[in-house]
Amino acid sequence: MVYFNNAATTYPKPAAVYEAMDEYYRNNAGSLGRGGKEMKSAGTLVADTRQLLKELLHTSLHEVIFTPTATLALNMIIQGLMKRPVKNVYITPFEHNAVTRVLHAYADKINLRILAVNKDCSFDLERIGYQFADCQPDLVIMSHASNVIGVITPVAEVFALAKKYEAITVVDMAQTAGLVDFDIAKAKCDFAVFAGHKTLYGPTGISGFLMNPDVELPTILYGGTGIDSANQDMPKDIPARYEMGTPNMVAIAGLHAALMKLKENNISSYYWQEQDNRKHLLDVLNNYDFVRLVGINNNLDYVGVVSFIIDGISSDSAGQLFSRLGVELRTGLHCAPLAHEFLGTYPAGTIRTSVGIYTNEEDLLRLNDSLYYIKSNL
Amino acid sequence: MVYFNNAATTYPKPAAVYEAMDEYYRNNAGSLGRGGKEMKSAGTLVADTRQLLKELLHTSLHEVIFTPTATLALNMIIQGLMKRPVKNVYITPFEHNAVTRVLHAYADKINLRILAVNKDCSFDLERIGYQFADCQPDLVIMSHASNVIGVITPVAEVFALAKKYEAITVVDMAQTAGLVDFDIAKAKCDFAVFAGHKTLYGPTGISGFLMNPDVELPTILYGGTGIDSANQDMPKDIPARYEMGTPNMVAIAGLHAALMKLKENNISSYYWQEQDNRKHLLDVLNNYDFVRLVGINNNLDYVGVVSFIIDGISSDSAGQLFSRLGVELRTGLHCAPLAHEFLGTYPAGTIRTSVGIYTNEEDLLRLNDSLYYIKSNL
Repeated sequence: MVYFNNAATTYPKPAAVYEAMDEYYRNNAGSLGRGGKEMKSAGTLVADTRQLLKELLHTSLHEVIFTPTATLALNMIIQGLMKRPVKNVYITPFEHNAVTRVLHAYADKINLRILAVNKDCSFDLERIGYQFADCQPDLVIMSHASNVIGVITPVAEVFALAKKYEAITVVDMAQTAGLVDFDIAKAKCDFAVFAGHKTLYGPTGISGFLMNPDVELPTILYGGTGIDSANQDMPKDIPARYEMGTPNMVAIAGLHAALMKLKENNISSYYWQEQDNRKHLLDVLNNYDFVRLVGINNNLDYVGVVSFIIDGISSDSAGQLFSRLGVELRTGLHCAPLAHEFLGTYPAGTIRTSVGIYTNEEDLLRLNDSLYYIKSNL
Repeated sequence: MVYFNNAATTYPKPAAVYEAMDEYYRNNAGSLGRGGKEMKSAGTLVADTRQLLKELLHTSLHEVIFTPTATLALNMIIQGLMKRPVKNVYITPFEHNAVTRVLHAYADKINLRILAVNKDCSFDLERIGYQFADCQPDLVIMSHASNVIGVITPVAEVFALAKKYEAITVVDMAQTAGLVDFDIAKAKCDFAVFAGHKTLYGPTGISGFLMNPDVELPTILYGGTGIDSANQDMPKDIPARYEMGTPNMVAIAGLHAALMKLKENNISSYYWQEQDNRKHLLDVLNNYDFVRLVGINNNLDYVGVVSFIIDGISSDSAGQLFSRLGVELRTGLHCAPLAHEFLGTYPAGTIRTSVGIYTNEEDLLRLNDSLYYIKSNL
């Protein structure tokens, strides 16, 4: 089995992540803020992990909030903001169901608009300026990179326009945190969501968001925080206000190791390694006439996610075929139906291949072999 | 450091749990329903884990829903039910902030009542019958065991009364699942919440609830489910309807190993081992006149959680002292202020010691030494 499904979760993780998790868990009960002496070492680990995330995203302003998944982070942000007078909401055509399904639950309350993007996947900043002037944005949510085609979106440029209207800004960095070097303070992001188990190369079970503490975010989830227990409201303090329930210390230990490794190697080495692997992936796919790439524009930047279709074979059938041939990838809508409507690949979807920093020559050879087999049997 | 904080999270876990997690994570990307061939083995592991939980709780009727924490499970259940015409809500005086803070957010909507419990911690079933007749219950939520004093509550008896009024019933088994043998079908529990990392001896990051699928539970969280992606509502199917975002496969692998171990050893062996350790703990504590046990009634059943106060020392000071003496325990309100109001230990709280199945003689000796030291220095 060779692995081309890194956009779902990166695999493998750095060895240091497995080691840190196993070692931490065997040696620590680690129930943060819920014990005596233990508290200190767990507390230090958590504080250090928050600090590494702030450094990674070039901010001293934002607070770091941990959540079990990026989906929960987006629920807390979007549903929290929905308790405020937020009406006009703009999103890109590339948003994941973790954004669009949440917004759909508020369809009666909001006025949802799609940012102007050209057919070639470039953002039309001039037209977006007119959109905002015509209908002033209260909230703008952007995927930093599409999980379907990998295109990196001009977050800083769009948010600069949005901030003229004092809109609240949210960037979903599930496909970019730890991979694309990005200054969330300079880009005027009020909220930046990360997924620990994707481009950060940490484990599942730990994700979260960075928030501008000057933006009022009402709470939507409640529970024990290990502090201020007599108060039946959630504590005022950030991050405690948004972190209820037992923290996933073993996952934080894994994420900490991943972030230390990333800092040691430098984010640009991860980025260029993945870019290199993406180039090799495109070389393989371009060998075959029956492969039709989707959403590629050579003037834009991409992360290592490439979607394609094969003429005459449905995505689902192709998926089963690749699986039989030992290639793990993903087919269908990738939880982003809106993106496929935009790309013209709805409802059948695409075949999605996604590389990581550990994708190697053998993986690419096996993918090539499987395409050769498909060609010979078309 | 000796560990008496098992009510927060059990420690250590069975070696099989550490091994399963490490092995699973090194060998599987494991993004359930989000890849090709991988799906099958991850899918089987998840299905097997659900089945083990159903067997453990003696039910074939309920569906198993995984959540990252028990707190989130309680939010999903309580906040989901709040979208229905639920007005009269009964709870025990022992509820955790994971219940009371959620209900507090709906203070304007509901009529919250406390089930009649005598000062000796026994439930007054006759009086509860009158309470229900006087103000018919729509929803009854009970901790199966108090996380402050460990008393096991008469869930089946109270729910039998509640069901005369067709109330919806929720049992919080955070301190009992996998430890106290309990038939949730016979006890008429519509919802039963478990915490993977507590009495189930699994890892943090995986908890959930079993639900009676005949009870309509509106959704409060939204996101990608890996299936039915074109639908902007959450899928109708249970559990997909309530399981959004990337599943924590490494934690499920750990929980699966914990459940297999539990099945192999039998739940009654865990229960009696812990009872035995509780007895030894009480023997140690009863050696010291200055230790005043809280909420103990010899006619009731308890799990291995014992709260006490020391005359002349605040709980917090005592906590720091125990910590310096190498004993990890927890002091304060334990996220359950209501319980302390009932017990008369609010707002200072108690010193809580909690044993697990792995508590051993050395742990108890060290606890005894620390108490002897405190006695000598009082």
